[in-house]
Amino acid sequence: MRDLKAAIRTVPDFPKPGVQYRDITTLLSDAEALAEAVRQLAAPYRDAGMDAVAGIDARGFIFGTAVAIELGVGFIPVRKAGKLPFETLEQNYELEYGTDTLQIHADAAGEGDRVLLVDDLIATGGTAAAAVSLLRRTGCKVAAAAFLIDLPDLGGADLIRRMDVPLTALVSFAGD
Amino acid sequence: MRDLKAAIRTVPDFPKPGVQYRDITTLLSDAEALAEAVRQLAAPYRDAGMDAVAGIDARGFIFGTAVAIELGVGFIPVRKAGKLPFETLEQNYELEYGTDTLQIHADAAGEGDRVLLVDDLIATGGTAAAAVSLLRRTGCKVAAAAFLIDLPDLGGADLIRRMDVPLTALVSFAGD
Repeated sequence: MRDLKAAIRTVPDFPKPGVQYRDITTLLSDAEALAEAVRQLAAPYRDAGMDAVAGIDARGFIFGTAVAIELGVGFIPVRKAGKLPFETLEQNYELEYGTDTLQIHADAAGEGDRVLLVDDLIATGGTAAAAVSLLRRTGCKVAAAAFLIDLPDLGGADLIRRMDVPLTALVSFAGD
Repeated sequence: MRDLKAAIRTVPDFPKPGVQYRDITTLLSDAEALAEAVRQLAAPYRDAGMDAVAGIDARGFIFGTAVAIELGVGFIPVRKAGKLPFETLEQNYELEYGTDTLQIHADAAGEGDRVLLVDDLIATGGTAAAAVSLLRRTGCKVAAAAFLIDLPDLGGADLIRRMDVPLTALVSFAGD
């Protein structure tokens, strides 16, 4: 089995000094690591009765569709503002400087659907929390969230669990 | 076999009056159509000796990774400017108003690698052409391009073929 953590490259001082950026492009370019990551992201949810996978624009699309296919369900793109053509719901959220907006189609999920949120990385969790709130407004249940990477020092995983969303992560980078 | 064209929703007058927007979110939410689209995107290239799939930020990520896994190869994200942490190559291209920039990591592909470019839709082809030019600067060969949707009236498919990149598309919307 491939060591997924070893397949992730750490780039110091990106996007600003002092940040250790976890670069997944080295994992993506490694065919075995990519397939293994998708299998492991999906594994806990194979018999969990999921109806759909949702992924957040843009990097959440990288794993989201592949996990959806692995689970035999459809995919819901959670998008940046202005990209979706049909009737939308939207949710603002705080960034380090300013705010941003996520949108989904109002018909993206149905009442009572069980949705798995997938993203590559959870840091402070602001974007993921906004996606959970947004998805819930369709009447669906965000039954779980699956991330490739958790940065536990930044508290995002705890934030999502406090929203009553169970969470799994394949790789953790703590204390640096 | 699912009718992929019937799974795509047409939304009139988005993003501006007179445009018939081809909305793939209805196809994505349909588990069978999603899996079928990925199978059909990959099918012509199963024995084509591809070394990697490249997808363009953001919607190219939706199908790109899944096709890469289907072909047993890695995935190269072609990104908007400022998103990639390592040494990058970049390519400017024309939009209807102004210009935009795509980037890849300089180590994204190797000399002589055979790369399949995947995206959801080809319209005027400006973004796809920029991605081909950018990928070629790594020394790789863009051996083919695969799209879910072709809008042939806009000439993008012809533009990509004139760059010596063979191209397949699963669904065509012409004359409207």
